[in-house]
Amino acid sequence: MSDQEQADRLYAMRHSLAHIMANAIQHLWPDVKLGVGPVVENGFYYDVDLGGEQLSADDFVRIEAEMHKIIKAAEPFERFEMPILEAIAWARDNEQPYKEELLNDLQRSGTTIAKDLDSAELGLPADGDSRVEKVSFYRNGDFTDLCRGPHVPSTDKVGAFKLMRVAGAYWRGKESNPQMQRVYGVAFATPKELRQYLDMLEEAKKRDHRRLGQELDLFVFSDLVGSGLPLFTPRGTIIRDELTKFAESLRYASGFERVAIPHITKTELYKVSGHWDKFGDELFLVESQETSDKFALKPMNCPHHNQIYASRPRSYRDLPIKYFETTTVYRDEKTGELGGLSRVRSISQDDSHAYCRRDQVELVVAGLIGDVQSLYVTLGMTLRARLSFRDASDKYLGDASLWEEAQATIRNLAEENKLQYFEAEGEAAFYGPKIDFMATDALGREHQVATVQLDFVQPERFKLEYVAEDGSTQRPVMVHCALLGSIERFMSVYIEHTAGRFPVWVAPEQVRIISVNQEAPTVDFVEKMAAQARKLGLRVGVDNSNESVGKKIRSAEVWKVPYTVVVGEKEMASGEVVPRIRGDMEVDSEHEPRQIDDFLETVVNESKSRVTKTSL
Amino acid sequence: MSDQEQADRLYAMRHSLAHIMANAIQHLWPDVKLGVGPVVENGFYYDVDLGGEQLSADDFVRIEAEMHKIIKAAEPFERFEMPILEAIAWARDNEQPYKEELLNDLQRSGTTIAKDLDSAELGLPADGDSRVEKVSFYRNGDFTDLCRGPHVPSTDKVGAFKLMRVAGAYWRGKESNPQMQRVYGVAFATPKELRQYLDMLEEAKKRDHRRLGQELDLFVFSDLVGSGLPLFTPRGTIIRDELTKFAESLRYASGFERVAIPHITKTELYKVSGHWDKFGDELFLVESQETSDKFALKPMNCPHHNQIYASRPRSYRDLPIKYFETTTVYRDEKTGELGGLSRVRSISQDDSHAYCRRDQVELVVAGLIGDVQSLYVTLGMTLRARLSFRDASDKYLGDASLWEEAQATIRNLAEENKLQYFEAEGEAAFYGPKIDFMATDALGREHQVATVQLDFVQPERFKLEYVAEDGSTQRPVMVHCALLGSIERFMSVYIEHTAGRFPVWVAPEQVRIISVNQEAPTVDFVEKMAAQARKLGLRVGVDNSNESVGKKIRSAEVWKVPYTVVVGEKEMASGEVVPRIRGDMEVDSEHEPRQIDDFLETVVNESKSRVTKTSL
Repeated sequence: MSDQEQADRLYAMRHSLAHIMANAIQHLWPDVKLGVGPVVENGFYYDVDLGGEQLSADDFVRIEAEMHKIIKAAEPFERFEMPILEAIAWARDNEQPYKEELLNDLQRSGTTIAKDLDSAELGLPADGDSRVEKVSFYRNGDFTDLCRGPHVPSTDKVGAFKLMRVAGAYWRGKESNPQMQRVYGVAFATPKELRQYLDMLEEAKKRDHRRLGQELDLFVFSDLVGSGLPLFTPRGTIIRDELTKFAESLRYASGFERVAIPHITKTELYKVSGHWDKFGDELFLVESQETSDKFALKPMNCPHHNQIYASRPRSYRDLPIKYFETTTVYRDEKTGELGGLSRVRSISQDDSHAYCRRDQVELVVAGLIGDVQSLYVTLGMTLRARLSFRDASDKYLGDASLWEEAQATIRNLAEENKLQYFEAEGEAAFYGPKIDFMATDALGREHQVATVQLDFVQPERFKLEYVAEDGSTQRPVMVHCALLGSIERFMSVYIEHTAGRFPVWVAPEQVRIISVNQEAPTVDFVEKMAAQARKLGLRVGVDNSNESVGKKIRSAEVWKVPYTVVVGEKEMASGEVVPRIRGDMEVDSEHEPRQIDDFLETVVNESKSRVTKTSL
Repeated sequence: MSDQEQADRLYAMRHSLAHIMANAIQHLWPDVKLGVGPVVENGFYYDVDLGGEQLSADDFVRIEAEMHKIIKAAEPFERFEMPILEAIAWARDNEQPYKEELLNDLQRSGTTIAKDLDSAELGLPADGDSRVEKVSFYRNGDFTDLCRGPHVPSTDKVGAFKLMRVAGAYWRGKESNPQMQRVYGVAFATPKELRQYLDMLEEAKKRDHRRLGQELDLFVFSDLVGSGLPLFTPRGTIIRDELTKFAESLRYASGFERVAIPHITKTELYKVSGHWDKFGDELFLVESQETSDKFALKPMNCPHHNQIYASRPRSYRDLPIKYFETTTVYRDEKTGELGGLSRVRSISQDDSHAYCRRDQVELVVAGLIGDVQSLYVTLGMTLRARLSFRDASDKYLGDASLWEEAQATIRNLAEENKLQYFEAEGEAAFYGPKIDFMATDALGREHQVATVQLDFVQPERFKLEYVAEDGSTQRPVMVHCALLGSIERFMSVYIEHTAGRFPVWVAPEQVRIISVNQEAPTVDFVEKMAAQARKLGLRVGVDNSNESVGKKIRSAEVWKVPYTVVVGEKEMASGEVVPRIRGDMEVDSEHEPRQIDDFLETVVNESKSRVTKTSL
């Protein structure tokens, strides 16, 4: 079976399970009023109205048991069509007011009314003909539902599933409508795949960055400061700084120059850039009490950087001019959308803007692809690239030959750099083509991370210029790029990717030194060793507390410290230690005694070389 | 003569010169209406109303000549008193409406009305008795003026002076009042001191950081972004970063931990901190379009840092907890007050907050004083410290014994650290005593820079706690400190202090390599040398342009590059260069040929050790 065939089959399985679940619920609650039941990522849901009775996870056992009965019965799914007026009568007769409303809307206004719903839910043809005369139904056993399909041949062909949770959902997403209950299930082709998925969820729960953020004291939120506005503790700031420093080191090595801009601007800047119309309602507006100027918090950095470019005459010899900056932008996200670091209002970006001649685009983009690859190889994440190109529509601005040339360049570079890539026609921004990079984490989940975007429009809007070799005035091409993207969001990914077991170069505490007792010579020895390590640039913790050695070692484990050294009489006499290595970094069980200098030097080297997994 | 006697004498000279200037103007414009004429820093001014005639610098020659006549005449200054009603009649008879208004106000409302004026201008006793019955006058020759004095004995005892400029000034500073002309003069006890001062002004003009900022391409402003919001170019960002990195390195060495906070907060945070009432109208308010929360741009960092402290229970063993951060605060300064980097709206601070036990205050403050000293020694600026203590008033919050102890600690530390200091009673903040550091620049001007402030109030307001050894709950003492202060303002000082001739470690371009021609082998050699230098971490510029060597060398001088190397056949054959050293860094004239490796290594060491002036 091809990938597409497999995906289609899984879709049919999940959609059939939505019917089977609704069928089972109807067996158990005969008066249930049904909403819609689409396929979603990893599974399906159905919206049901039980007339005020609240479902809970406890009910899932009963529902699942009933579903298994229906599955076992191997009832065939049969498709049939009905004229729309007849369908409305059917819904009325069966006391299904939600279905009746949908059908009425369809009859009155055609498919346009139903934009809030997957058209598959409406029993409509896929091509979305707005003159609706007939709708299709699927029937299995005693259950009939308005549906476009497709379905599996019979109820026993649905793979493996599990009901997961129930949540409130307003009918058709409108707060003024009745609240229904949305029952979610996950489903896969085989029990093994289901098991893997559930295991992954279990592991993801343990790795939840919000939980680890609290356990490892990485960041906090404050009601007084506001939601979506994380405050990074010393430990979290180390991670943030180490990731940023690494990304910045790649920038410097690639000839980027750092600039520094304020976080606010007069709104005029965005009127020139065109962002005012696009971003207007995501802007935090800033009110000056001293002047009548209207300000905003910047939601992006390019217009500011353009002002630096525009501050001097530029010659073709000066190009490419490459600015970068790690700086925070602000976006006025809805409070409901905020959670942990995945989505925040204060978004720190490792942003860059290169201004280049047309003949330099290839070199500049190639350099950026190289930087993206260097970064994610070191972070231990594999990349996939989406080449987002234009389609035939006329919404794209800028010279067509420039587009064509740039897209060909991007495609060639993807090949040359052996990127795992796919092309997405119609996914380009209106201002230029782009490469979006997705990184796969340790649990196999994909996250959008770095991006490289060409921009043919801002240079025009800001009248950016350079004097060409022939003396003519030309517009540069702009290339936007972020390697980490949003550092907050990347941290949420990276904390879960590593499960908080950070490699030495990122770990907030790289070495912990434990004293076996609180006697002065031991404590002195420990403090001296710590001072030596700090002088070497290591981040060292000391545990001289009045606890047992076992408890101290467990504490170091809880904090996921890469190396733990216990100092007692033997170590003091020999000057040798046997470092305890954090489980995930251990490749063999040999724990040889090491000279302290030698051990510390190894850790320094491991940190400097940014090794992600190693053993001593 | 004691310092105080000298200062008093200079004050009398300057004040007498104000009278003499008014006298001279009255000779030349008999209808002049006089406002007030106080002593200001380095000189004096007088506000005059010439009935619409505009003075210009061209008039200064005539006025000065007339003043010299009066001076030469050695007219004694005579003091006499007049009952206030008689004085009003005198003003009316002499057609001096401004004086008449002042005297009328005085008669009606006592001294309180005249808060906008120096009481010396009002002929009032210094102790500010609000029942005004008599006022004093001074007379010399044909000129009489309402005045408290004191004056020099006669007009020939006024030292050396020069008229500087004339500017519009509203009568008593109110826009609704008539605009007068304010004529400024500078004056010193001797011609030599005047000459020195004028030379300093000339030099300061050349060093004006706004001018150097433009010439050396360090920062720019944009009308689209707004006034008071500088954008730092790559060169300016290097200076900013180097200064910041140095300040941060001192923090790390002193055990401070970096944290990271957002630039906005709900205004609730400032209601708790108490800043809302104090800073309310300097706040940039931020409007969320998505939520009803009220936000503000942070004008200081302490309340945010307090939220990190408060996020976990703290034990006496954890203290001192020392956070630092280089971050930008925003203050809504009046547009009229903004100019260059001296006063901006986006203020980057190298801010720190230490939370400590009462018995740790001394150690923490001592560490901070040490950091301040290390910083300014390296920057080549001498420091003076003002110990700002409480007075007997009851405006100070916090335990009195804590104040006493803390002030004694500060005084002891000032002695121990051999600070050049003075005590200023009544200059403490209401929340605690502080040390304000003033640095003297190369032109002898003093600038407020670092500050160390104790705070007994915020821990109380935020209910910050730690568990003491005896199990009781205690409040920590907070110590605020900035080493550079506002980095923008410090840059304005430092650019002028160095005249843009930055030491190697700060210089945006440390070495410039010039090719004698544009032939491939020379250009290759230059590029290879540049690559080698960059690998060593040096900031290198290359000039391969089609200009004469002389012109290229002059260009390197204009950009104030510390080291310039010219590469031609001789250098390529020998592998040796004779670096040109920027004038101010040269201590002898010997320019020996140096092996390239050897030369580059010297520059690296000079940069790493942050030498401020040196020679190869």
